[in-house]
Amino acid sequence: MPEEIPADSAGLVTPQKQLFEQPLSLSSGGKLGQYELAFETYGELNADRSNAILICHALSSDHHAAGYHDPKDKKPGWWENFIGPGKPVDSNRFFVVCSNNLGGCSGSTGPSSTNPASGKPYGPDFPIVTVRDWVESQARLSDALGITQWAAVIGGSLGGMQVLQWSIDYPERLRNAVVIAASPKLTAQNIAFNEVARQAIRTDPDFHDGCYYEHDTEPSRGLRIARMLGHITYLSDDIMGKKFGRDLRDDKIDFDFDVEFQVESYLRYQADAFVGGFDANTYLLMTKALDYFDPAGPFDNDLTRALAQARASFFVVSFTSDWRFAPSRSRKIVKALHDNNLNVSYAEIKATQGHDAFLMKIPHYVDVFGAYMDRVARECAA
Amino acid sequence: MPEEIPADSAGLVTPQKQLFEQPLSLSSGGKLGQYELAFETYGELNADRSNAILICHALSSDHHAAGYHDPKDKKPGWWENFIGPGKPVDSNRFFVVCSNNLGGCSGSTGPSSTNPASGKPYGPDFPIVTVRDWVESQARLSDALGITQWAAVIGGSLGGMQVLQWSIDYPERLRNAVVIAASPKLTAQNIAFNEVARQAIRTDPDFHDGCYYEHDTEPSRGLRIARMLGHITYLSDDIMGKKFGRDLRDDKIDFDFDVEFQVESYLRYQADAFVGGFDANTYLLMTKALDYFDPAGPFDNDLTRALAQARASFFVVSFTSDWRFAPSRSRKIVKALHDNNLNVSYAEIKATQGHDAFLMKIPHYVDVFGAYMDRVARECAA
Repeated sequence: MPEEIPADSAGLVTPQKQLFEQPLSLSSGGKLGQYELAFETYGELNADRSNAILICHALSSDHHAAGYHDPKDKKPGWWENFIGPGKPVDSNRFFVVCSNNLGGCSGSTGPSSTNPASGKPYGPDFPIVTVRDWVESQARLSDALGITQWAAVIGGSLGGMQVLQWSIDYPERLRNAVVIAASPKLTAQNIAFNEVARQAIRTDPDFHDGCYYEHDTEPSRGLRIARMLGHITYLSDDIMGKKFGRDLRDDKIDFDFDVEFQVESYLRYQADAFVGGFDANTYLLMTKALDYFDPAGPFDNDLTRALAQARASFFVVSFTSDWRFAPSRSRKIVKALHDNNLNVSYAEIKATQGHDAFLMKIPHYVDVFGAYMDRVARECAA
Repeated sequence: MPEEIPADSAGLVTPQKQLFEQPLSLSSGGKLGQYELAFETYGELNADRSNAILICHALSSDHHAAGYHDPKDKKPGWWENFIGPGKPVDSNRFFVVCSNNLGGCSGSTGPSSTNPASGKPYGPDFPIVTVRDWVESQARLSDALGITQWAAVIGGSLGGMQVLQWSIDYPERLRNAVVIAASPKLTAQNIAFNEVARQAIRTDPDFHDGCYYEHDTEPSRGLRIARMLGHITYLSDDIMGKKFGRDLRDDKIDFDFDVEFQVESYLRYQADAFVGGFDANTYLLMTKALDYFDPAGPFDNDLTRALAQARASFFVVSFTSDWRFAPSRSRKIVKALHDNNLNVSYAEIKATQGHDAFLMKIPHYVDVFGAYMDRVARECAA
């Protein structure tokens, strides 16, 4: 391994692709004729195939959860803090899989992929996909990899919603469900933020009704706004105050519309870094999947009934300063699981970082997550 | 009075204008050569001119605080709930004045007004104005109206910030200061939301660097986004949940990008109603005035020292579910006033409505506000 890569990293990894030729029936009633999923794996599958872990990603991340594609990469995968040798999701003990969600823009079939029917990018013709559709597509990936049952399915935020859906749709296919910083459904305020982001993208003149690929452009202004707005909801008011306060970028107030405060500089930087690397149509789809997620809906809003089929043991984690999916949302999940007499461990982590805390190396969080996963690993070995 | 207008309304009112020909020196270091302020008055000034009340408006409102311009008007002024015969700001007892802030778009000189130097609209050449500049311009209006001392200066949100500034800059010119749902300064998160709104407007291709008047257009897409975002911060998560929950507009999910949930419909409606009636350059200026407001800044962030010159009696009001300017922000004001041995009444009103509660007829709020203003009225009469 090149010396630049830390010893506790999953190391150099190569993304893979799996083609699925059987049409996928979608929640919307539509069908996707064929599709590919991009994925990565870390660690080795054991002889009895009992040590496999599925990682589900959130809104804007992808299948590159850990390790490096190239020794010169500036940054490792998005969950490097938690996946790797000796880490909670220990790649010396587990065979870890992470796939890019269907509709994504990092290798899996999505709006920017070529529609075989037209020979042009899908664009707005790519169907709306739901959390349930993702789970279905991931179940097929499990089959392709020869994994009958996951030791654990794990995810934070929108990833945690996929974990919940897995436990409902495929109760026998996972022994443990790790649901981090998630919610059983969005609130009206959550939906409202998503709608503003969508309107920013869809009213950008460069959106061209979603067919911007053909115009050799992209709705970058709208996507910038969406990303800035997202970032506000990922951080707590508290951590924003601690990080930036009312600090000026220069020493003095300039009284103009250039960057005046550090927080403005941060938001513009985050927005600029995002645009060009992420597809706007994918962003739209991901926010819709969030809005529609509501497993209790078909059960008269009774989450206990929705989870009645679940069989996994659960580890639920929330963060005190998360105002996007507050601890009260996680507690609703915990209650419904308890109502069903399921094994549940719940950790409410004291953290100032807001929703983004699920990505961060917070000692208490690392410890309890590590302890839970150690038990999962010992079950596999037994 | 036409029978359509309720008896407890200030009734039919006619906006007035006052021209100021002496240049106004601004916080930014610039100057405004001459300017007009649009204003309205309700009630009669008494013989000793002791019953005058100044109302300061918030981000997007104007001088039309109460009454009707025409019996056929669908809506009265923006604070009709609180100004009128028998109401807390009783127009039978007080002479009430409300002016449109400098930089506004409802009659006072602002970016859409003609710049006498060029014969064209000011646009981006209109200088950035601060809360302090507004107070200065309002003090000149007071002179023009022959009001040496206000019985009270009153405002909610950004209006409350003007009240604080009045108490600092003209301590002898107001006997009472009523500061509602305000903050001694914005947090990083508050600034962040403003910056997203500004970026939405300024990156709209129809913005034309602020010179959109000459292109016979306006950055309506950006202004729509700004307004939608604003509305999210004006309401609490709780009241959004109560008003809209996850209710669908139709009976079923359509799986498309049209309005799916009621809250989306609400936001789009609010945005559409705003655009066309409000100037985008004014919106930019108002958010900047919010960002810059920080009276404690020049005093090593010591609000107590900033308020050391204040002489008024204070009535400070906050609302429990206001997450834009939370009660903790108002309590900081109260503490600094107490530190200066000033008379302070503080009411923290239990309300689910969020920041917008300051506009609403909440019984406890109406009662305590009414009681305070009754004392103010009795002082005038004494």
